[in-house]
Amino acid sequence: MTRADDGLGFILRYENVARYQDGEVIILDRRKYPALVEYVRCPDYTAVAQAIAAMVTQSGGPWLAAGLGMVSAARAAHGLAPDKASEVLAQAAYTLSHARPTTSARMAAHVQRVQAAALAAIQQGEDPEAAAYACLMDLLEKRYLQARKTGAFAVSLFPQTCTILTQCFAETLIGFVLLVAREQGKQIELICPETRPYLQGARLTASLACDMGVPVTVITDNMPAYVLSRGMAQVFISAADVICLDGHVVNKVGTYQIALAAQAHGVPYYVLGSPSPANPTIQSVEIELRDPQEVLHAMGAATTKPGVQGFYPAFDITPPRLVSAVVTGEGIYSPYDLVNHFAPRPPAED
Amino acid sequence: MTRADDGLGFILRYENVARYQDGEVIILDRRKYPALVEYVRCPDYTAVAQAIAAMVTQSGGPWLAAGLGMVSAARAAHGLAPDKASEVLAQAAYTLSHARPTTSARMAAHVQRVQAAALAAIQQGEDPEAAAYACLMDLLEKRYLQARKTGAFAVSLFPQTCTILTQCFAETLIGFVLLVAREQGKQIELICPETRPYLQGARLTASLACDMGVPVTVITDNMPAYVLSRGMAQVFISAADVICLDGHVVNKVGTYQIALAAQAHGVPYYVLGSPSPANPTIQSVEIELRDPQEVLHAMGAATTKPGVQGFYPAFDITPPRLVSAVVTGEGIYSPYDLVNHFAPRPPAED
Repeated sequence: MTRADDGLGFILRYENVARYQDGEVIILDRRKYPALVEYVRCPDYTAVAQAIAAMVTQSGGPWLAAGLGMVSAARAAHGLAPDKASEVLAQAAYTLSHARPTTSARMAAHVQRVQAAALAAIQQGEDPEAAAYACLMDLLEKRYLQARKTGAFAVSLFPQTCTILTQCFAETLIGFVLLVAREQGKQIELICPETRPYLQGARLTASLACDMGVPVTVITDNMPAYVLSRGMAQVFISAADVICLDGHVVNKVGTYQIALAAQAHGVPYYVLGSPSPANPTIQSVEIELRDPQEVLHAMGAATTKPGVQGFYPAFDITPPRLVSAVVTGEGIYSPYDLVNHFAPRPPAED
Repeated sequence: MTRADDGLGFILRYENVARYQDGEVIILDRRKYPALVEYVRCPDYTAVAQAIAAMVTQSGGPWLAAGLGMVSAARAAHGLAPDKASEVLAQAAYTLSHARPTTSARMAAHVQRVQAAALAAIQQGEDPEAAAYACLMDLLEKRYLQARKTGAFAVSLFPQTCTILTQCFAETLIGFVLLVAREQGKQIELICPETRPYLQGARLTASLACDMGVPVTVITDNMPAYVLSRGMAQVFISAADVICLDGHVVNKVGTYQIALAAQAHGVPYYVLGSPSPANPTIQSVEIELRDPQEVLHAMGAATTKPGVQGFYPAFDITPPRLVSAVVTGEGIYSPYDLVNHFAPRPPAED
């Protein structure tokens, strides 16, 4: 049986997203990494939500940070009357899962599971902090197992030797893609668009690949179509912030224009992740607009004159016609077939 | 009759590319502008060529800098024997026009005109420096008149109210587009991709528009397709480093993927400039590869770990099928019709 922790130690060490200690959530500040390795210390769940909103951690990082925020809330709820504790936990679950608008549906599921575990412990007179943490670690183990399976399905689609074009940072998924490719003896190289304004491609994806000994080349975000036109990449992959059941993919802004260019050059685009039952169609997704100042600065320095406006949509939308396959932990799907596999089951009739 | 200098003072003042003083060429350092206003002082033509190669000035800037470099070479040739002077001037013309590979054909014409004027002065016992400078200023006046005409043809294609998506910095051409649009009472706004790694869109185009009072929004280079998908821009325009007579456009890397996205959303792409008789087909163009370190840094700071590679093609190639029109000082052309208007005339038969 496939176990998530084959080689996982390395990925977990690399990811170094966040950890929990005595009510405090300590989050690696990915806005500065790898130039600086600094941590933001969050004494309670509201500080965690603020850190997520401020992009201290991004991509898959908020999943763990929010979960640990719930553990912190469970500690705060310890000793309160069950009604009051329930209120605190509900407030925390809402705040943490709504820290950023586009991904709130995706964040709700595990946050609510941790909330339920903490509440059950309180009702049974047990320690809600310990119950919440155990629940979260169990979910994390399942998440890593799912990521390994997803990575293996993705690698099965790659030729024996290939250069993969990425976008932003696919977190655990890209780690497992590289790990499984190595296990299978496939020769993989990466080309990473830097992914402005936060530069997750340059800072996180390229750094991860470099740490894993995978040859990696960074380009700026205006180069993917040229790279594709020169036959320099055989596959385009990304994770997704939301995969709607109608096959629309919501991911870091720039994914759409790379997918357009990939199709123009006959290069397949594989999106890795879990379709979201809470998002039956793209109409259910709100594209988050972030602080325009972020696009008017690079590495902390202003790039233009005062008086110039900025515009910063965090995500864009890739329609299913540009998606070659949706790669999940369960297998490989057509974007047009998701609704048949991932839609919530209707309640059984009486 | 249209005169180039209507409103030209403003544009010339803004452009502030380079000036000449007693053999020295003083070039605004656009790598730092607008954060810093600093000048690189070039004591001779080789220093000018080095400054162009080092991107002290870009876009249309090298045209004036190289011309002034020829004036400096003419001063150095003053008093030499005609044969020796001719050799110095020929060496200068070659060095200046080949400072960067992709644009050498475009740079040769005016450099050779200035070279010829200096040589004629020497042969007639006149001051080659004065002759070279007068020749260059005459060519500059013609260049600005051509830019105004090109701008006017471009503006004729715009709706009464529109937002224009740009790429990189179209130099004098974008200045005249904005000036003529204002004269004609058209309501224009700009959206400028920042154009990494040198950020000419943010630093130069947005600053020019801001100085001219035109509303302008900067986006990162991964956002054009999203902006187009939301109907936020009605026109995409760019200048070109080379317009081949077969309709291929060579311009700052990123132009191609914006043109792909523009076509996908029914937004016309107009390229402004002069087709190059020296480039009958795209096969005649070499795409310059610049120092990969430039894409691994932003505003002087490293963006990734040591050990990560970079790749920096300065330009990309947009095929004629994505070009709605080529806008020149002579009029508006289909990219497929250029060879019929701009090919060199065969020598008359005996």
